[in-house]
Amino acid sequence: MNDYTKWYGELEVQRLMVSDRWRTDAFARAIQEVVTAGDVVVDLGTGTGILAMFAARAGASKVYAIDEADIATMAVELIQMNGLEESIEVFHGSAAKFQIQEKADLIISEWLGHMAFVEGMVDDLLGVRDRVLKPGGRMLPSAVEVMLAPIDDPVLYSNHGPGFWRRLIHDVDLSILEELELKQGRGFQTFIDAASLLSVPSPIVAMDMRRAAPGDQWTTGKIDFEVKRDGVLNGFVGWFVAELSENVILDTGPNHPQTHWSQMYLPFPPQIAEKGSHLSVDYQLARHPEYWRSLEVTIELGDCIQRYIVD
Amino acid sequence: MNDYTKWYGELEVQRLMVSDRWRTDAFARAIQEVVTAGDVVVDLGTGTGILAMFAARAGASKVYAIDEADIATMAVELIQMNGLEESIEVFHGSAAKFQIQEKADLIISEWLGHMAFVEGMVDDLLGVRDRVLKPGGRMLPSAVEVMLAPIDDPVLYSNHGPGFWRRLIHDVDLSILEELELKQGRGFQTFIDAASLLSVPSPIVAMDMRRAAPGDQWTTGKIDFEVKRDGVLNGFVGWFVAELSENVILDTGPNHPQTHWSQMYLPFPPQIAEKGSHLSVDYQLARHPEYWRSLEVTIELGDCIQRYIVD
Repeated sequence: MNDYTKWYGELEVQRLMVSDRWRTDAFARAIQEVVTAGDVVVDLGTGTGILAMFAARAGASKVYAIDEADIATMAVELIQMNGLEESIEVFHGSAAKFQIQEKADLIISEWLGHMAFVEGMVDDLLGVRDRVLKPGGRMLPSAVEVMLAPIDDPVLYSNHGPGFWRRLIHDVDLSILEELELKQGRGFQTFIDAASLLSVPSPIVAMDMRRAAPGDQWTTGKIDFEVKRDGVLNGFVGWFVAELSENVILDTGPNHPQTHWSQMYLPFPPQIAEKGSHLSVDYQLARHPEYWRSLEVTIELGDCIQRYIVD
Repeated sequence: MNDYTKWYGELEVQRLMVSDRWRTDAFARAIQEVVTAGDVVVDLGTGTGILAMFAARAGASKVYAIDEADIATMAVELIQMNGLEESIEVFHGSAAKFQIQEKADLIISEWLGHMAFVEGMVDDLLGVRDRVLKPGGRMLPSAVEVMLAPIDDPVLYSNHGPGFWRRLIHDVDLSILEELELKQGRGFQTFIDAASLLSVPSPIVAMDMRRAAPGDQWTTGKIDFEVKRDGVLNGFVGWFVAELSENVILDTGPNHPQTHWSQMYLPFPPQIAEKGSHLSVDYQLARHPEYWRSLEVTIELGDCIQRYIVD
């Protein structure tokens, strides 16, 4: 075994993120907008160091680039290669242990997972914010919303979802697996056609990154979705919208360019949805009780309660 | 937590396999061809029990359906639902512990992973074969080959492979990651266009399932690939071809319909390949030293040795 093996997969994940052009361009533009000359900046979860380098190029006098993963050692080399070692300092360790003498003007962090909160990184971020951000300091992203909407996508449900089991397969009947798969409740990553949306999407969490406290993302609530067209409700779709800066919104939803996050499809037992009717949905977003990096999303509509694992 | 959670993901994997029509239809046809009335059949890794049910419908007098995973309890229900509980007996346990009094005429097993041998299930299968198959009994699949070919796919290499790092990203240079990602050597699942093939594919393993011994899949050898057209070698592609029966070949390669296995792309440091020239490749296929369900594929060409993890 050589040294490289300890990074198995890390570089591919970095490539997946950096090559997501909609994401990387949005962060580059927002950093350009938000960083002012002489800023002290923290970049939490720096990976290759790319956002820290954008910040240094945008005029930051000092950037602290933090990553717990071994790729941090590579970030040091990459920063040198780009001649930015004077202004960027890499901290290879956990966010909880990061401490500096001076206070930061800005904290940058691409901490976003599926439906924003998969990966469970936000509490660490808020801890760093409370320890090192100046009063009145900036956060990038500045706000994050998780969106939910009912959809009608029969092909998705029937070909790539629990509805697949309805068909006979060479005369064998596996149809009881539809209900079982629904009960298991797994979210699927996929791209949802905006035409599938049955209602105007609604936020289920809205987090102001300067004011939020750890745990604020775990919410319950009720939404009244008005159905815009006749159809069959056969699932919900979840995604996030991040306000990176005043002028840069990163919307990962169905009406926008595809990102590596895609959207999260939550299959639901099919039911008729009539134009003008209302779907009264109770929802809960919680940390998964068993897998702490995952979410548990609960959706209740009429008699039906669906509980999903989202990861 | 309810009972269903212990199957997290299992049903989706089953759906992915069963809904792979090229795969399921091929097994259905081969079972129809190979099973004769009154056969005693073993189905190893039965999952939902679907192949066992095909065998029972094709005339088997008795089918032993084996699975270690919890889905076996569901297979019992599905078999009852299809009225086949008289002829199919589910054994919920490890292959190593499976024992019957009578001998089997036929062993069916869809044990195939990426490049056939990912998942490491074949040794268990050969153990069952040696204990329960009649002399002269049949195996389905009857033979398996792993194929390898050099390819020229610049878009794959540059946009979705290590070559991505060559470009400047908002003026930041991450190009040293190309070499690092190549050294890490991960195989990627993707679909390769047959037009990318630089040479006629060659088998690196050929296993006769009736005669093979455990470990026969771990091979070293040399191939002389003749380059069919001018291009740039920037990777190899691996896949398997399974002979399910005399008349049914399941070829998962670039010239065939897409299956859920896709193909395995092994990126290689780019080099000019001239039409008519020869690429003398030394290869090794081994169990990965650290992750036993994964493969380690080594490809040596000229001065360059690449070692890949394939999973």
